[in-house]
Amino acid sequence: GYQELRRAKLGLNDELEIPALAALLPAASGLRVLDLGCGEGGLARRLADDGASDVLAVDASASMLANAVRHPRVRYLRADLACLDLQEEFDLVVSSLALHYVADFDGLVARIARRLTPGGSFVFSVEHPVITAPHSAGGFDSYADEGPRQRTWFATDVLKHHRTIATILTTLRRHGFSLTAVAEPQPTPAQARQYPHLAIHRDRPPLLLVAAEARR
Amino acid sequence: GYQELRRAKLGLNDELEIPALAALLPAASGLRVLDLGCGEGGLARRLADDGASDVLAVDASASMLANAVRHPRVRYLRADLACLDLQEEFDLVVSSLALHYVADFDGLVARIARRLTPGGSFVFSVEHPVITAPHSAGGFDSYADEGPRQRTWFATDVLKHHRTIATILTTLRRHGFSLTAVAEPQPTPAQARQYPHLAIHRDRPPLLLVAAEARR
Repeated sequence: GYQELRRAKLGLNDELEIPALAALLPAASGLRVLDLGCGEGGLARRLADDGASDVLAVDASASMLANAVRHPRVRYLRADLACLDLQEEFDLVVSSLALHYVADFDGLVARIARRLTPGGSFVFSVEHPVITAPHSAGGFDSYADEGPRQRTWFATDVLKHHRTIATILTTLRRHGFSLTAVAEPQPTPAQARQYPHLAIHRDRPPLLLVAAEARR
Repeated sequence: GYQELRRAKLGLNDELEIPALAALLPAASGLRVLDLGCGEGGLARRLADDGASDVLAVDASASMLANAVRHPRVRYLRADLACLDLQEEFDLVVSSLALHYVADFDGLVARIARRLTPGGSFVFSVEHPVITAPHSAGGFDSYADEGPRQRTWFATDVLKHHRTIATILTTLRRHGFSLTAVAEPQPTPAQARQYPHLAIHRDRPPLLLVAAEARR
């Protein structure tokens, strides 16, 4: 039921996503950071605590932002990533598990490229494309069919956008980014033994993380 | 039966792999090329016809090389990629559907990096990691479990090596390569209608192609 799903989701975040993203992030000290899809601000506050000079944390959800914990170097902004176009400059753009909700990835990456300082970093995690691909009972299929996927998560319908790995990486290259790291964290055998609800994530990679560097 | 499988395989090569690899290759004119796993020499001869000054085409199989068609600018060499260590320099290293047979990818990439001129290209296709991952009846699983996979292809047992996309790309980065393109060709809806035996490849990407540039 709900508790189990919530536990699996929490395990996925705590055990896999948060450490894998941290491993790809540059040292935050002194950086001006933009966090796209900040939710309740956990990542934004960690970056501020790690020395970022300023973190602009953006989310479309008023209820998420209402629950976000304040921090002297984090500014929260409610905005839709689909049309966000900031006039500021950033040294680091991060996004944790949000960009698969964005329909126009190409447009978003173009706007990020314009706002990053030369050599700045763009580091993000998304649901892995083998997970966002349309699924049948026995497996995944239609990896080739990119586009929106309706998913029902409890009472709420959410719309995710399936894009292939090649599309994600090629889009970054097209806007002048160099790829510096790609990660597909999965539980180790030891993690799967310690947290049995995570074992299923050894079958298919649940997450894709990418680190890219803006044109110098 | 055999004819159908052979037709599906040929369609996969002709319709997907050959054009996708060609799209990632630099202009061959004047280049010294190394082709790893050349088989009967089709790619090596195309590169020589496109103007490569010299192509060293390597395969472990004597019977493949016996069937290879001679070309004035192609030298054929029988050697195992696992221990091949050439003393020549190359401007371009290519490999078509061969590197998933190599156990020590890290060692091979290290040797390629040493033999490429600064800024030289390494372009290759492999079976897609969602295909080399261990499979159960209903789907793929154990993507996390890298290593050898025994496959029976008619009478012959072949040993393939499953590596995740993250491992492949991270290995290239570790040896100083910049990633310039990643492709996952799948049949278009039109191709799937014209060649019904290809339609299955819309479900899961059969091929992964990577283009990388050696350190300048």
